[in-house]
Amino acid sequence: MSRHDGRRADQLRPFRFTPHIAPNATGSVLASCGRTQVICAVTVQEGVPRWMKEQGVTGGWVTAEYSMLPYSTLERKQRDITKGRIDGRSQEIQRLIGRSLRAVVNLEALGARTLNVDCDVLAADGGTRTTAITGTWLALRLACNMLLESGRCTVDPLAQQLGAISVGVVSHAPPPGISAAQQPGAGNQVVLDLDYVEDKDAAVDMNVVMNGAGEFIEVQATGEEATFSRSQLDALLSRAEAGIRTIFELQTAALAAFPPHPQGMQSLPPVPPPRR
Amino acid sequence: MSRHDGRRADQLRPFRFTPHIAPNATGSVLASCGRTQVICAVTVQEGVPRWMKEQGVTGGWVTAEYSMLPYSTLERKQRDITKGRIDGRSQEIQRLIGRSLRAVVNLEALGARTLNVDCDVLAADGGTRTTAITGTWLALRLACNMLLESGRCTVDPLAQQLGAISVGVVSHAPPPGISAAQQPGAGNQVVLDLDYVEDKDAAVDMNVVMNGAGEFIEVQATGEEATFSRSQLDALLSRAEAGIRTIFELQTAALAAFPPHPQGMQSLPPVPPPRR
Amino acid sequence: MSRHDGRRADQLRPFRFTPHIAPNATGSVLASCGRTQVICAVTVQEGVPRWMKEQGVTGGWVTAEYSMLPYSTLERKQRDITKGRIDGRSQEIQRLIGRSLRAVVNLEALGARTLNVDCDVLAADGGTRTTAITGTWLALRLACNMLLESGRCTVDPLAQQLGAISVGVVSHAPPPGISAAQQPGAGNQVVLDLDYVEDKDAAVDMNVVMNGAGEFIEVQATGEEATFSRSQLDALLSRAEAGIRTIFELQTAALAAFPPHPQGMQSLPPVPPPRR
Amino acid sequence: MSRHDGRRADQLRPFRFTPHIAPNATGSVLASCGRTQVICAVTVQEGVPRWMKEQGVTGGWVTAEYSMLPYSTLERKQRDITKGRIDGRSQEIQRLIGRSLRAVVNLEALGARTLNVDCDVLAADGGTRTTAITGTWLALRLACNMLLESGRCTVDPLAQQLGAISVGVVSHAPPPGISAAQQPGAGNQVVLDLDYVEDKDAAVDMNVVMNGAGEFIEVQATGEEATFSRSQLDALLSRAEAGIRTIFELQTAALAAFPPHPQGMQSLPPVPPPRR
Amino acid sequence: MSRHDGRRADQLRPFRFTPHIAPNATGSVLASCGRTQVICAVTVQEGVPRWMKEQGVTGGWVTAEYSMLPYSTLERKQRDITKGRIDGRSQEIQRLIGRSLRAVVNLEALGARTLNVDCDVLAADGGTRTTAITGTWLALRLACNMLLESGRCTVDPLAQQLGAISVGVVSHAPPPGISAAQQPGAGNQVVLDLDYVEDKDAAVDMNVVMNGAGEFIEVQATGEEATFSRSQLDALLSRAEAGIRTIFELQTAALAAFPPHPQGMQSLPPVPPPRR
Amino acid sequence: MSRHDGRRADQLRPFRFTPHIAPNATGSVLASCGRTQVICAVTVQEGVPRWMKEQGVTGGWVTAEYSMLPYSTLERKQRDITKGRIDGRSQEIQRLIGRSLRAVVNLEALGARTLNVDCDVLAADGGTRTTAITGTWLALRLACNMLLESGRCTVDPLAQQLGAISVGVVSHAPPPGISAAQQPGAGNQVVLDLDYVEDKDAAVDMNVVMNGAGEFIEVQATGEEATFSRSQLDALLSRAEAGIRTIFELQTAALAAFPPHPQGMQSLPPVPPPRR
Repeated sequence: MSRHDGRRADQLRPFRFTPHIAPNATGSVLASCGRTQVICAVTVQEGVPRWMKEQGVTGGWVTAEYSMLPYSTLERKQRDITKGRIDGRSQEIQRLIGRSLRAVVNLEALGARTLNVDCDVLAADGGTRTTAITGTWLALRLACNMLLESGRCTVDPLAQQLGAISVGVVSHAPPPGISAAQQPGAGNQVVLDLDYVEDKDAAVDMNVVMNGAGEFIEVQATGEEATFSRSQLDALLSRAEAGIRTIFELQTAALAAFPPHPQGMQSLPPVPPPRR
Repeated sequence: MSRHDGRRADQLRPFRFTPHIAPNATGSVLASCGRTQVICAVTVQEGVPRWMKEQGVTGGWVTAEYSMLPYSTLERKQRDITKGRIDGRSQEIQRLIGRSLRAVVNLEALGARTLNVDCDVLAADGGTRTTAITGTWLALRLACNMLLESGRCTVDPLAQQLGAISVGVVSHAPPPGISAAQQPGAGNQVVLDLDYVEDKDAAVDMNVVMNGAGEFIEVQATGEEATFSRSQLDALLSRAEAGIRTIFELQTAALAAFPPHPQGMQSLPPVPPPRR
Repeated sequence: MSRHDGRRADQLRPFRFTPHIAPNATGSVLASCGRTQVICAVTVQEGVPRWMKEQGVTGGWVTAEYSMLPYSTLERKQRDITKGRIDGRSQEIQRLIGRSLRAVVNLEALGARTLNVDCDVLAADGGTRTTAITGTWLALRLACNMLLESGRCTVDPLAQQLGAISVGVVSHAPPPGISAAQQPGAGNQVVLDLDYVEDKDAAVDMNVVMNGAGEFIEVQATGEEATFSRSQLDALLSRAEAGIRTIFELQTAALAAFPPHPQGMQSLPPVPPPRR
Repeated sequence: MSRHDGRRADQLRPFRFTPHIAPNATGSVLASCGRTQVICAVTVQEGVPRWMKEQGVTGGWVTAEYSMLPYSTLERKQRDITKGRIDGRSQEIQRLIGRSLRAVVNLEALGARTLNVDCDVLAADGGTRTTAITGTWLALRLACNMLLESGRCTVDPLAQQLGAISVGVVSHAPPPGISAAQQPGAGNQVVLDLDYVEDKDAAVDMNVVMNGAGEFIEVQATGEEATFSRSQLDALLSRAEAGIRTIFELQTAALAAFPPHPQGMQSLPPVPPPRR
Repeated sequence: MSRHDGRRADQLRPFRFTPHIAPNATGSVLASCGRTQVICAVTVQEGVPRWMKEQGVTGGWVTAEYSMLPYSTLERKQRDITKGRIDGRSQEIQRLIGRSLRAVVNLEALGARTLNVDCDVLAADGGTRTTAITGTWLALRLACNMLLESGRCTVDPLAQQLGAISVGVVSHAPPPGISAAQQPGAGNQVVLDLDYVEDKDAAVDMNVVMNGAGEFIEVQATGEEATFSRSQLDALLSRAEAGIRTIFELQTAALAAFPPHPQGMQSLPPVPPPRR
Repeated sequence: MSRHDGRRADQLRPFRFTPHIAPNATGSVLASCGRTQVICAVTVQEGVPRWMKEQGVTGGWVTAEYSMLPYSTLERKQRDITKGRIDGRSQEIQRLIGRSLRAVVNLEALGARTLNVDCDVLAADGGTRTTAITGTWLALRLACNMLLESGRCTVDPLAQQLGAISVGVVSHAPPPGISAAQQPGAGNQVVLDLDYVEDKDAAVDMNVVMNGAGEFIEVQATGEEATFSRSQLDALLSRAEAGIRTIFELQTAALAAFPPHPQGMQSLPPVPPPRR
């Protein structure tokens, strides 16, 4: 059974990575996956959060913020500051992004610096969180290159590759109390990289984050509309693993083709003189 | 290798469920899992959120709030209202609880009512979110009994049993970029129902929510300190499945022993007269 | 004339004090007065608020927070963080609790420590603020015992006993501009320890806080529905004094029967090393 | 023993009431008591709060807000909006003012209108809450005259006179655990109308609100620095009663001398046409 | 063509400046312009904002806050703290006031102090921001006199005179896309010092701030209802310049007639001892 | 004297307009002016704000929001939601943008719709508010084309062209109290289109908004660092007028070259059925 946009069940949408989209950031990429577009920007800040100093934790830190620009959805989305509180879904996603990045960053090699990661969704068509993680890895790669070239870091702080994708069981929602597992047939297809139309009606939705060694960093599977069996979970994981392997190749190819940063070292903050 | 508290790797902490802890709620339970204690309370409200009416969605709704009481941790935790913003972790957890409950509630059978679920942690020693879900199912059972007995519902709105548990890979954190999979030996044990001491140092932490039919509702695995392999994921899932089966038995036994609600029908709101 | 629940005008509701309800607090008590239940918890924090250091004030500090859990009322009450602002009534009550406690604590003997008092109402049926004060004294007694036993304090910081009760003039509200004093007869009865039903219709409502020496700490009399004469004020004070004397006996009896703290010294924070 | 400013123990500070200080309000008065100055303004609004309509309560409403202007204290006080939350003490005071006013207003006679009372402290030297209540009665009198003259009300909504004053036991603070009652001699004087210097060191502080019939509306006595005996309470009440009787005379004399409102009826909102 | 209140096009409303309206401020003035009244108060604070210390900026600072009291308008205006956010228009105005003041204050001569300027509108009838600036200059003059007399400053921190006024093109709003320049005739009059009635219907509104040397500090011209030509802009500027020259004379005359501050040096904060 | 980047005093930086940058918006443009980049997006919403309905105002509405993305500056800028309040400067700018747009939109022709304009700064190098206005006009043009093509509007809601630019007097800041007018020589140059380096040290800064007929919509001149004379004001206005004429040509040329919208009509909300 083919998908509404003609893709095979195991087929990714087209990816595109435009570097230096935010020239004042240390590293930035506009990551597109089909019609989804996310600005991924990394800015370096000398110094670490107060809690690290208070608790005597050495090394650096990575923190992430995720936000949907108001015009990223077909129906305009109010800004958080207008509503007066940060969106619950955004907060959940930015915690996921932060954890995923810290799993591939060597915080000791980073030194007493903070990498601020910002992911702003320019256009939302499903898969914004995984596109954000995939794109951020490239922005982080650009920023870490700058840290290495400037001599601020001598060991590469970015220890591993990182990618993410969504998979799902697509079907019409079964009645409450009936699991997707009991609904056989074409309606219950395990598909890779759901767009908004698929995601909205998916029985099961799963986001997977992996590192370059093929190991898992995060697995989040949700069955609000339906439950899922162990064998479905296995099929979802396999499809996600294959998808992320392709993503790693796309990232590598994109990186090789990036031009140098137009402003270069200017986007790094000055190093404060050492305290005597 | 035995655990710091003498448990086997596949052993739950002792569970206890005290009903009617909040007598003005429609259904409530104090759920204890070892030294972790969570007040789980369900209050029924006639009517549904505005967005359901605006979008023409029929049936009822279930919403959840999760909060840690300031004295639930050994170091006092500021109230959200003092900090002026809801805690990110709390928000993530209450979204998880809400989704899990909606997966076992028959919203049509509930009718145009809202079940407000509140989970307040009285003592935190690891596993608060899974204890909250496990305890809330009992509180929900009590509340739905009240809805059935009062004639407000004729079909049971609680379609399935629900339980949750945490599992983890316990080890000392490997260096960044080195996965837990590469750290063989006794340090990498898959354990059931982590307490705070184990959770703090776990390489991998996973929360699993299942229904009474043995199917998954949520699977969330996180490896901030280390990554995990597909085989570790399988071992974690199996351990969690076995643990939740035991939890279902404990819930059923507890329910059979509950005394009647001391205030009974008083805890239900009056039904408004029908609009002509 | 007997009251709706059969009590005499000078009769308290049954009191019950359950210790160690919040085992991670230094001292805690679940205080019940009839159907009203309040969790009273004291956590010790080394150090004092910034303003004390800035103003050079020596000794310790006591601060209190009061909150109604959302399921404490028959109609669910929104959390403060959901409304985005702390409830005015709660703020007024927690200021009253804080002042009352400071009147019986020897802040010099406490040393440079803060006693954080939290009162969370589990079930509300009138008299929550006075039950909170009465119960908190017991929690404070438990916490101060721990401070003495651990050697942190050598002089008992809790200098006096403390109790509180409400009294009121119960009648049907007279028309505006007509005082309760002008409404003779059985409708104008001075009663002790009002429950919700009585409180809602009371012409005059008064809260009294006293110390073990029989002296007043706070007297707050309010006649929103009606005014009151000097002789009514006298009758209210006498009834309250008698009630609080009984409460002192109940507190003393309860304290004698409390088992030791299940976690003991663990609930005290580590003492920081002295600054050289 | 004379007071620091030469007053007798039973002597008020000089009062002054300047009408129409805020000409766009329906009624307004600048009330001064010694060096304390409070702007008291009443604005009429057609319609009542939503909760009254929802609960089917008829008649009108009176609501009060109290705020200290940032330059009212010698050390500048931050605005609430700068701190992001309303001051706890202000909230407590505005609740007191609102209750006091509602005790003398005939809400039925007012009709479906809201009287918004605003008290802004221009200069603070002790007694701001009682000066606010005393001055607001005059502003309310002016506003109700306007309602009567315009024909909006046919029965006077202001049923009674209203006045308030502070009294206190002035002494040096006794050591913790020692009550003011045990400190005999000149240091324990019951004084009327405390200014800031006296208030700061008062052992006991009491605010009393009375109506024109000589009955109590609110009595709030606080002994944070010391406790107080029943006989001291009696002495405080008597002193306050005498003081408020004088205040009633001062209000009456001031009112007789007020010129007409410079803008008159313009300060009343237009009456909406009746709904058919 | 005469104006609705009988003034000539180039005629100011009557101004009045009442000094020491807020006696606890270091300098204060109630500035009236027709029926508009603004409390202008300056309080001195030893020390400067944190950012100045962090950036190593020497000298002092001037900061301004502007707010409309709720009863300043005929229809009551909610307080910012009630709405939970500072009004956008207020924020814009207080930034304008702050910039204007800093243009005439010698921050080096001020020393490491902050002048807090507060402008609270008591009655609004158009021109509140310009009346605030004009009145604040007088309050600043009084505060700086106090700094000089007390010896805190040896060089006058107030380097120049400061005044502001509004001008406008008054006409009925032309249809969208048609500029006021194309609407010839009496309807398009350039008038000085608009009151609320004129301001509401003005095609163009302009606020001008000048110093005593006749040079511009701020020019803000807005044509939301209509656009304006270069020649209209010239006519507006000329009219404003003439108006501000008259304001300088009024300020000078008022200052000469001010009595001394009733509390004098008391309104200055104590100077902290120098750090060794 | 040439400028630091080699431009003549009357020379604009290079402009570039990239259409459809936010494909889910109805109209959008990425506007670049030198190194400054602003995302300008217009989304159409059926219906108007509540206040328009309440006040019986017919036609449509235009509202604007302006925000700096955190990575738009070399030193990362915290998000408003993190600080908990909207930035004062942002609020001032978005009010300016909103007023400017409403001056060229025919609100009657728009019908009962709201045009939501969002300006998010991607890279800040001076002139962000004027670049936002200039770019927004193009986004508005695209959105209005869509309204016309879809038949929602029959008369073009965009009545006039709109452009904006900054001009300034560039010099080293004169000492306080000395005006820029008194500082003759090369240091006092009137320059067009200031970048960040020039803006930071400009003695006078002026933003001008004009329509296609060459008339002014807004003129805002600020001399925080120095004052300015009437003749300087004239020179600034002339330079700005010439600059904006060039901008009109650049807008027109860009528009002619824009490709069609990739998603077209999809970005318009469905028209609700008429109420009977």
